[in-house]
Amino acid sequence: MNKTILLNQRPQGKPTLADFKTITEEVPAPQEGEVLLKTVYVSVDPYLRGRMNDARSYVPPFQLNEPIRSGIIAEVVKSKHADYQKGDFVSGTLAWKEYQTSTGKGLQPVDPSVAPLSSYLGVLGLTGLTAYLGLMEIGKPTKGETLVVSGAAGAVGSVVGQIGKLLGCRVVGITGSDEKVALLTDTFSFDQAINYKTAADLKQAIQTACPDGVDCYFDNVGGEISDAVMAQLNKYARIAVCGAISLYNETKVPMGPRLQPIILTRSATMRGFIVSDFAEKFPPASKQLAAWLGEGKLTATETIVEGFDRIPRAFLDLFEGKNTGKMIVKV
Amino acid sequence: MNKTILLNQRPQGKPTLADFKTITEEVPAPQEGEVLLKTVYVSVDPYLRGRMNDARSYVPPFQLNEPIRSGIIAEVVKSKHADYQKGDFVSGTLAWKEYQTSTGKGLQPVDPSVAPLSSYLGVLGLTGLTAYLGLMEIGKPTKGETLVVSGAAGAVGSVVGQIGKLLGCRVVGITGSDEKVALLTDTFSFDQAINYKTAADLKQAIQTACPDGVDCYFDNVGGEISDAVMAQLNKYARIAVCGAISLYNETKVPMGPRLQPIILTRSATMRGFIVSDFAEKFPPASKQLAAWLGEGKLTATETIVEGFDRIPRAFLDLFEGKNTGKMIVKV
Repeated sequence: MNKTILLNQRPQGKPTLADFKTITEEVPAPQEGEVLLKTVYVSVDPYLRGRMNDARSYVPPFQLNEPIRSGIIAEVVKSKHADYQKGDFVSGTLAWKEYQTSTGKGLQPVDPSVAPLSSYLGVLGLTGLTAYLGLMEIGKPTKGETLVVSGAAGAVGSVVGQIGKLLGCRVVGITGSDEKVALLTDTFSFDQAINYKTAADLKQAIQTACPDGVDCYFDNVGGEISDAVMAQLNKYARIAVCGAISLYNETKVPMGPRLQPIILTRSATMRGFIVSDFAEKFPPASKQLAAWLGEGKLTATETIVEGFDRIPRAFLDLFEGKNTGKMIVKV
Repeated sequence: MNKTILLNQRPQGKPTLADFKTITEEVPAPQEGEVLLKTVYVSVDPYLRGRMNDARSYVPPFQLNEPIRSGIIAEVVKSKHADYQKGDFVSGTLAWKEYQTSTGKGLQPVDPSVAPLSSYLGVLGLTGLTAYLGLMEIGKPTKGETLVVSGAAGAVGSVVGQIGKLLGCRVVGITGSDEKVALLTDTFSFDQAINYKTAADLKQAIQTACPDGVDCYFDNVGGEISDAVMAQLNKYARIAVCGAISLYNETKVPMGPRLQPIILTRSATMRGFIVSDFAEKFPPASKQLAAWLGEGKLTATETIVEGFDRIPRAFLDLFEGKNTGKMIVKV
């Protein structure tokens, strides 16, 4: 039998388990030119929240009673496709199903002898590409500059900070627990990390951690954390808006200090980053990330949850900050 | 005798006449290597408001009991400087004084036989450069795109819109009276103009005026007008933050809808523009503006107020939208 997770209803505010529904179907039979895939690892990502709304965005919304789709690593268990053999592994944007067929469109082969399979969803997948290309194409930090990363212990943030150190920046991370602060400074060599939940005055803490101001801000969270960072921007600062997890579950239009005066007086550049806009740069970026990973210069951190049924819960836990690094469900 | 206008006190919120003080001094005598200048035209500009606060910004604040300084056209009435003769005209950032001496540092000669003297404060001065460089370097509109300009009948906005038309854009202006709406569409060939004060639903009015969305937003005002424009941004939209006149007099931190979700989902770029950052591009920009003006492709609009004593009032009137085009005081 074949479990499938559907969007049961559009979340109102913070998503709940009731927004998802698991049904059981027959395992499909691949047609000529198709493969049958068995899901191995499922990526759960904050941006999926946006697709659960019926709203204009950069990807079309999920439909009610249709499967959720996200980054998945799957094993080819039957093949009627010339390019794939049983036992091959692939990655792609696939449905939250235990088994599904595919014509091969949009699939990339992945090799478990080169790197652990899960890393193709993380540092060697869209997560790593998001960190690398968002930082290089928008943040553009140079040696000696100060880079601040929010959501710093998350999937993207932890890679951004490590790349910042490789580029010779002072790197300051903002995160939500003392354990994550320790991880950032001890394992990922961030110069400083701040626990925004316990900081008495976040603005002051950022100012202290960034004595030369902030040249580059890689923003995964939006909201009050970003307000505090923006107050410290240097002239010609760059802000890569890569995510806004603190705002995704808002039911009213979220309000905050207007940014125009800071953007204007600092000659700052704030730019939205969507990794798919940079698809033509994926090959060289992937090569660089794989090289750094191979040389031990990048550490991939993952939070792996086991069991197909736990995909919705793993997704919900993203909004509680329960993950360190990439949140992945092992089926 | 020589009148001088000083900053009497730092404005709290909207400036008032009491924030300025006029004193009378002796007319100074130029030393060897100096000229004596007689003020002819004074530019009053919204950005001066920021310099009246004791706050970090892109230029140092004015000091209490010191003269205000702004763009001025002056006549050389005595010269002990080899490069200047009596009767020459110059432009520069000078003090609000009827007479002042100068070593010539920062002065540019201007020629009344080429263009009216006041235009060197407007379309041939920093106003024109702000419009041209802000649009070309940050807005980067291309033929067929939709350009929205706020503060559209102001000094900068009226030039931005005209350049947008020269570039082949659909140009929509937002302004504050029906007279200005008529000016924009009839004299400056804007495709549409909107009176934000009388629009029943500004967002809807912008949507109707921009059926293909907004590719480029040249923002002189910030605040709720900008909120309404931002809601209509297309993918890869550019926002040139050139001014925020609606926010300059706020005494509390102005709040508004958070911009990160729009910036992110539209892959938009929002960038602060300060004309002095682009000083190396002034010569070719000035040449282009002078050429367009000479060919009759640009119309310079000015509101000229007469009398040195009326400089403070003219400045205050900027915040009431009493000017059309460049606000200039003729001394």
